[in-house]
Amino acid sequence: MIAITLPDGSVKQYDKGVTVLDVAKSISEGLARNVISASFNKATVETSTTLNEDGSLILYTWNNDEGKKAFWHSSAHILAQALEQLYPGVKLTIGPAIDNGFYYDVDFGEQSFTEKDLKPVEDKMIEIARGKHEFSLRESSKADALAYYKEQGNEYKVELIEGLDDGTITFCDHDTFTDLCRGGHIPNTGIVKAVKLMSIAGAYWRGDENNKQLTRIYGITFPKQKELTEYLALVEEAKKRDHRKLGKELELFTFSQKVGQGLPLWLPKGAALRERLENFLKQAQKKAGYEMVITPHIGQKELYVTSGHYAKYGADSFQPIHTPNEGEEFMLKPMNCPHHCEIYNAKPWSYKDLPKRFAEFGTVYRYEQSGELHGLTRVRGFTQDDAHIFCTPDQLDEEFKKVIDLVLYVFGSLGFENFTTQVSLRDPEKPEKYIGSLENWDKAEQAIINAVKDKGLDYVMETGEAAFYGPKLDFMVKDALGRSWQLGTIQVDYNLPERFELEYKGSDNEMHRPVMIHRAPFGSMERFVAILLENTGGNFPLWLMPEQVSILSLSEKYEKYAEKVLNLLENDEIRALVDNRNETIGKKIREAEMNKIPYMLIVGEQEEKDGTVSVRKHGEGDLGTMSIESFSELISEAVKLELKEFKN
Amino acid sequence: MIAITLPDGSVKQYDKGVTVLDVAKSISEGLARNVISASFNKATVETSTTLNEDGSLILYTWNNDEGKKAFWHSSAHILAQALEQLYPGVKLTIGPAIDNGFYYDVDFGEQSFTEKDLKPVEDKMIEIARGKHEFSLRESSKADALAYYKEQGNEYKVELIEGLDDGTITFCDHDTFTDLCRGGHIPNTGIVKAVKLMSIAGAYWRGDENNKQLTRIYGITFPKQKELTEYLALVEEAKKRDHRKLGKELELFTFSQKVGQGLPLWLPKGAALRERLENFLKQAQKKAGYEMVITPHIGQKELYVTSGHYAKYGADSFQPIHTPNEGEEFMLKPMNCPHHCEIYNAKPWSYKDLPKRFAEFGTVYRYEQSGELHGLTRVRGFTQDDAHIFCTPDQLDEEFKKVIDLVLYVFGSLGFENFTTQVSLRDPEKPEKYIGSLENWDKAEQAIINAVKDKGLDYVMETGEAAFYGPKLDFMVKDALGRSWQLGTIQVDYNLPERFELEYKGSDNEMHRPVMIHRAPFGSMERFVAILLENTGGNFPLWLMPEQVSILSLSEKYEKYAEKVLNLLENDEIRALVDNRNETIGKKIREAEMNKIPYMLIVGEQEEKDGTVSVRKHGEGDLGTMSIESFSELISEAVKLELKEFKN
Repeated sequence: MIAITLPDGSVKQYDKGVTVLDVAKSISEGLARNVISASFNKATVETSTTLNEDGSLILYTWNNDEGKKAFWHSSAHILAQALEQLYPGVKLTIGPAIDNGFYYDVDFGEQSFTEKDLKPVEDKMIEIARGKHEFSLRESSKADALAYYKEQGNEYKVELIEGLDDGTITFCDHDTFTDLCRGGHIPNTGIVKAVKLMSIAGAYWRGDENNKQLTRIYGITFPKQKELTEYLALVEEAKKRDHRKLGKELELFTFSQKVGQGLPLWLPKGAALRERLENFLKQAQKKAGYEMVITPHIGQKELYVTSGHYAKYGADSFQPIHTPNEGEEFMLKPMNCPHHCEIYNAKPWSYKDLPKRFAEFGTVYRYEQSGELHGLTRVRGFTQDDAHIFCTPDQLDEEFKKVIDLVLYVFGSLGFENFTTQVSLRDPEKPEKYIGSLENWDKAEQAIINAVKDKGLDYVMETGEAAFYGPKLDFMVKDALGRSWQLGTIQVDYNLPERFELEYKGSDNEMHRPVMIHRAPFGSMERFVAILLENTGGNFPLWLMPEQVSILSLSEKYEKYAEKVLNLLENDEIRALVDNRNETIGKKIREAEMNKIPYMLIVGEQEEKDGTVSVRKHGEGDLGTMSIESFSELISEAVKLELKEFKN
Repeated sequence: MIAITLPDGSVKQYDKGVTVLDVAKSISEGLARNVISASFNKATVETSTTLNEDGSLILYTWNNDEGKKAFWHSSAHILAQALEQLYPGVKLTIGPAIDNGFYYDVDFGEQSFTEKDLKPVEDKMIEIARGKHEFSLRESSKADALAYYKEQGNEYKVELIEGLDDGTITFCDHDTFTDLCRGGHIPNTGIVKAVKLMSIAGAYWRGDENNKQLTRIYGITFPKQKELTEYLALVEEAKKRDHRKLGKELELFTFSQKVGQGLPLWLPKGAALRERLENFLKQAQKKAGYEMVITPHIGQKELYVTSGHYAKYGADSFQPIHTPNEGEEFMLKPMNCPHHCEIYNAKPWSYKDLPKRFAEFGTVYRYEQSGELHGLTRVRGFTQDDAHIFCTPDQLDEEFKKVIDLVLYVFGSLGFENFTTQVSLRDPEKPEKYIGSLENWDKAEQAIINAVKDKGLDYVMETGEAAFYGPKLDFMVKDALGRSWQLGTIQVDYNLPERFELEYKGSDNEMHRPVMIHRAPFGSMERFVAILLENTGGNFPLWLMPEQVSILSLSEKYEKYAEKVLNLLENDEIRALVDNRNETIGKKIREAEMNKIPYMLIVGEQEEKDGTVSVRKHGEGDLGTMSIESFSELISEAVKLELKEFKN
């Protein structure tokens, strides 16, 4: 008999040689039907694997990331089989599962393969899947494996096998097909019910541009047709909401080859949007007792040697800036904290002065490889809505909770209702990864856990995910498409106060070290605007919209009245514009709808006579005719509903 | 006979050999009494110089800069004579006039000389001055001059003479004293009525730290004792108003050795002050049709090669920033214009879209040698209140005038009533100093001159003072102490539009180049705040004050009422604080006065009972008792008087 420990901690006894599937059956028939992969003692196994020793078993279904991985990895085998059948002589290389599906890199040799060839391959895959062929692992000697692929003339697999240390090589067989493989498959091909090959791309063998270019085929599969349909709709919607596309259409930002990649230029509408976001946070921060400071975008290298950042990141960063003579070395600031520490150090403090909360919309620069850059979400220069709180250890718990309140206020005002949090703790097994004393780490981690519990947040704890200088709390929001994004962060730091020798005089008249909290509710203005764009599809909350109202004249005759309406609205601080072009009202409405302007006011003879406007709401249609004052009130009320005041 | 042309254009005939003084006498006895120096055919001459050819003569009195220069240069001779008499064997080196007085660098050898030795030298100078000794120039051969100083053992003068190309050397004699000198003296020592030696400092011979350190004695002299008294009072007041001193006292900004010299850190009160200034300008700019943009603080080196800045300034700037791999080169931006050109280039424009006015509070970095740095007026990183206007050539005149209107509004709102302007034109004799076509330069210069005349500004034209890329209009303000400061600037640029290939489609459907205007009413936020501090001595206009009101409780018993007053004022957006310390009211008032808080509200039993406040104004005293509402109104009215709305 062997003892199998399940994830809930329970231990069950089985005969030696029991299969994973048997264990699943012994738990429930339902689980047995759905289990598609498993791990035993932390190693991936199949449902057919026999268990011959005591150990921990985790069973995976489609609903686990590990289950999906096995599902998609197995689907890559099916794709490979279909390709071999349709394109005899094709050379297979590697075919892993990825976040959304899988791919296979293949060498078609002289045969051509384009997007329009994907459909027949899909059909063949469905045909194979319907055969309900079981996946089974088979061991082979390295020599036999090499001989097999040499005979096939597949130099890629030969190279892969030669690179393996193992004396024994594993193959995975299903139907008539066999492939070099470590394992992690679903029981049989029949579980795959829906197949979509998404695209093809060029990819160099082993990612090296000196090697031959292969054809990469991307695909995704599902256990139900309905899930595929939903996924494809989501992909379409995500394309429409791509912040790079929307940012261009709405004229929010641009990039310039001459200025450099990853360095966004904010156009007038984008800059105004960003300023509204900043002013919104500034107001809340003022109420919460923050004080704004302004610091330069460079600092002496020495500053980052003191902070420890240079030793950690110096080599991978933008390199130091030299001066023509005098031998000074400056660096672009990768974060604002060292500067804020120096502001703290500009005068002596007493415990009565604390907490001090220094805030800055500080633009920082971090070198990212060009291949990593992506719109506004991965850039080389970005502005953090940064602040550093310097407090006594006694104040830490309360300050941390206050920051959470502020973050929740920010999310609420911007329509992010669904969020989870992650408490990132150190990996106690790798103390060399972190700086600072064990005692301080314990205190800091406890403060975060206390605050999260006290505020009743939905959280997970992740060991080993802390920053090197301290533990942190990250906020993840789910957007309108159900995608998860990391936004704000709150971090406790006992380290920088040490390194910058920060002090305050305590009630005992002795000097003490303050604790520091780093925090950024938005994270960065660039990333936040990108996420806001993708979440709202450009239909921002009304208070944020670059243009809230478009006044559409029925003809050029009503220009004067349209201008009068504009002036009255502008007096009430409503952002409006007039469309007085010589175009049909239909075209004007269509364009305003396309530009996502929340309200359209149609003005013609009747409206001018009565001093009214005919109101149309974006995406909803006609709201009827009303006085200008009533409309102005409607807008003010709508904004007030969105933007509650921050209460501290 | 010779023909002498005077500054008013009149030409008079004189006998050959007439002296400058004779010419002055022929004009008026008053002028003859006051003339102290002159220039003939652009060369400095003495009043005793004889004129032997036709030419232009300008006569200088104490009221001209050139007159003061001769006065102070002559005073340096008197100082040197006094030193020779009191410190036999002292070696004289050089003794020029400077902006405020003169100095002489001397080698005292083994003799000691400290600040307390200045008074006897002053007395000796007065004694010499009273002798009314005439200054007279004397020519000598180079060999004789060398022999004279070699005999004296003065290696400094020997080195100076050896460095001169002239075969003939000039000496200036007065009384028993003689000195190597080119000329430019007052008629006699008797005109010097008041003498003050200000300070001593160490100075290396020829400014080279490898040379011997000499003693530099700074002094100033005046034709009237009263003028010296006034000057010394001004110096005292200027010391009190030194923005570095005030900035520290008022906690506006600081510097950190670790961050680096010349890189200001704005403390909370300073950052808030700066934000108020920025918001004030933003509002006016919005009315004037500007749009804000935001651009990064770095750009690829290529960007500045395109703009021409790299070729011109690259070697003397902060050096390029390299990336760890990928071989990219970035530079800290020394100006915002190339980035704004790229924003312009982000989409196509029609003549109907112009003018476009892109504004940004853009922080730029320029390398200055450490010896040149000075508080906030000379820094290595500063924020320009920058904007670039892109317009058609036809719009240039009007746009330039609109910018002048904006600048005048800014100055008026900040209490700078006295200003002059300088039109900086190219030097037509040095075309190699400038880039761009002659035709464009002519157009741009004419646009500025037109605008200045049209607006009736007080201006001077300076040839050769233009920027290398275009002519400009600079605004100089006189501060409360009568000192002149350069503030805003407006510059026309036909060059960058060429280099960045900016275009718009004209009404003729052809592509054309727009014209660019660079402008910054404040100049830079750092420099402007420094000047504002020195001009106001920290007593900013009420609308700008970090704290407008201090509420002083008569005792801690009235804390609640003080807090109530605070809340009511804050609701009216008045910046107030409560001083509820257990101190005498006298001490609280003194401290509030020292902190330059404009209004103090004293609250005690009677005030709490009546719901009133006892108002005291900074520097003026008691204003009586009034209701909180009346006081709030008083503040609002005072601010309204200072801050008129910008009308475009």
